[in-house]
Amino acid sequence: MKWPEGLRSATLACGIKKSGRPDLGVLYSERPMSWAGVFTRNAAAAAPVEWCRAHLGGAVRVLVVNSGNANACTGPGGVVAVDSTVTAAAETFGVAEDEVLVSSTGPIGVPLPVEKIITALPDVQESLADDAATFFEAIRTTDTKSKTASAPGVMGVAKGSAMVAPNMATMLAFIATDAPAPSEVLQEVLARAVDLTFNRISVDACESTNDSVFLFSTGTGEEMTDDELEASVTSVCSALADQIVGDAEGGTRIVRIRVTGARDEGAAVRLGHAVARSDLLRSALHGSDPNWGRVVSALGSEDRSLDVSGIEVSIAGEVLFTASGPCGDAGAARAAMEQPEYEIACSVGDGPGEAVVTTADLSPDYVKLNAFGMT
Amino acid sequence: MKWPEGLRSATLACGIKKSGRPDLGVLYSERPMSWAGVFTRNAAAAAPVEWCRAHLGGAVRVLVVNSGNANACTGPGGVVAVDSTVTAAAETFGVAEDEVLVSSTGPIGVPLPVEKIITALPDVQESLADDAATFFEAIRTTDTKSKTASAPGVMGVAKGSAMVAPNMATMLAFIATDAPAPSEVLQEVLARAVDLTFNRISVDACESTNDSVFLFSTGTGEEMTDDELEASVTSVCSALADQIVGDAEGGTRIVRIRVTGARDEGAAVRLGHAVARSDLLRSALHGSDPNWGRVVSALGSEDRSLDVSGIEVSIAGEVLFTASGPCGDAGAARAAMEQPEYEIACSVGDGPGEAVVTTADLSPDYVKLNAFGMT
Repeated sequence: MKWPEGLRSATLACGIKKSGRPDLGVLYSERPMSWAGVFTRNAAAAAPVEWCRAHLGGAVRVLVVNSGNANACTGPGGVVAVDSTVTAAAETFGVAEDEVLVSSTGPIGVPLPVEKIITALPDVQESLADDAATFFEAIRTTDTKSKTASAPGVMGVAKGSAMVAPNMATMLAFIATDAPAPSEVLQEVLARAVDLTFNRISVDACESTNDSVFLFSTGTGEEMTDDELEASVTSVCSALADQIVGDAEGGTRIVRIRVTGARDEGAAVRLGHAVARSDLLRSALHGSDPNWGRVVSALGSEDRSLDVSGIEVSIAGEVLFTASGPCGDAGAARAAMEQPEYEIACSVGDGPGEAVVTTADLSPDYVKLNAFGMT
Repeated sequence: MKWPEGLRSATLACGIKKSGRPDLGVLYSERPMSWAGVFTRNAAAAAPVEWCRAHLGGAVRVLVVNSGNANACTGPGGVVAVDSTVTAAAETFGVAEDEVLVSSTGPIGVPLPVEKIITALPDVQESLADDAATFFEAIRTTDTKSKTASAPGVMGVAKGSAMVAPNMATMLAFIATDAPAPSEVLQEVLARAVDLTFNRISVDACESTNDSVFLFSTGTGEEMTDDELEASVTSVCSALADQIVGDAEGGTRIVRIRVTGARDEGAAVRLGHAVARSDLLRSALHGSDPNWGRVVSALGSEDRSLDVSGIEVSIAGEVLFTASGPCGDAGAARAAMEQPEYEIACSVGDGPGEAVVTTADLSPDYVKLNAFGMT
């Protein structure tokens, strides 16, 4: 996969990760790009997130991203680290400091060894190339699979596998288009796309300090209508969001919670997330246990005024609960739950609201990975 | 432990549990008792919960409780099962139907084999006794430890070890006093006590369909002031709540999340629960990883307007995060986290609000138990 014309990237190992794996990525554009960003709403947003948020609406030429360190909850030192990175990148690439963005992902609360980044930056220019796939290596943390997607005129690269919750998943995504578009259009398009995609996945309902989705426009390609652009951006976001759930820490299958009949779309999203974040249900999913009672219980705890006699739940195509009580063939559901991907459909009433929230099962390996750093 | 004078209980195995273990309990009072109840707010509340809620304010002489089946999400058949149980119990004990309460705990969505209960009821009368400790056997599900507590004039028995969340923990508790008190006083006392105790524990943040706390007054003992009664009821609730967290499915330690400096007490409780329900943090606690970043991240996702520069976090007595960033001795914290019980203290600002929310670590065994029914 290639970046749009005029945009190139480099991937290096600068020594932040003890493993010696790549941990530094740079995006470089020959000319100023308009851009948009959607960021975590966590009050403990990382220093690089605050920098980017403050520069929304401007033009950008360089983005420096590191993995292996989130530069979050690092106090005043974290802000200094961002400033130092920006200053060094602006000098190295001959751009204005306001044209530099920064992004970080990795453990929270460890001072960023910024001198390693600054020392490595001069080497970056030689290795800039239009190949985008290797960029994933610069941003991966516990990811086991590369995450890239494309649609007409738009492409993107992402990382994320835990601390994944709505608003947004713990994730970084770098999406680019060669279609010319001003920042305002990009921002509107991206906000809507994120709301329909990254905000409808959940791995562990833990919201990160560093979530960031960037959308860049190089302006080097053909014009697209706003609708065409939005369709492509949404398609890329959707594919990347799916890939994140598919790589959930410890997860073994993708489960789509489809809620229909809710009061409105927002209510459907909230109900879907309530089901998607139930540890009890997600444990049952790991064991292919069609435990629809945990679905109903999660729905009923989210909306205390739900009319349970109007709820119908099916798992993997088998209707297991209706107004008249338990029904269906649990054995058939159990067998169907062995598939790598299936749906839990919850009809909760007569309203027009519907939404799909995508999650993964909860496995002992998730706990081991986050308790002991290994599975 | 004995029930108050005039109150007796029986514990039987009527065949609901395939294991043949006790699954039926009856409380019988020689004279009508005033009583209070606090119940789940889940919209999918079980049929027995709905029965009890509808009878609040009346007098009661008999309570029939079964384990091994929640009689929740069982449709119209679940209501019939409650009615049949009440009718049979009223006949057996020669009391009015309105003087009978019912309670159930166990798997959701399985039709209650009510005939087994009805068949067993005549045998109950012979085995009624004033010993309360054996009553725990009638109500236990995945509990591994008996849960009883007492304070001056008040005693109680409870069950619960998962599907434990605020409002309330998945749990049943039967608390009794011999002090005379009208239902209205009991209800006020119990509501306040539950809010301070059972509503401040969390195992998996999954709210149950059957949560019920009962408080009975036999009126056979000495007068207590309302304050004395409330102190004792709160003490018993607090001890039982602690015992539930101490028996959390798969849990290996009790962790108290102490929040201070919040806007008000309600905000402190919400922040405490946000930390207590973080799968990422609870996994870290299992591995004795002093991952304060996951604490700050959870706080910041709950209150998006928190001033992170004013947050201080200590784990097991070691201050690890202040306004100026990471600090302290993580190794010392790690060692202290090997204790069976410790505190995570979060100072979040200058407000007057404080609260303690108690939780347990998340272990692979929790997942295995809820995925495969075993560890």
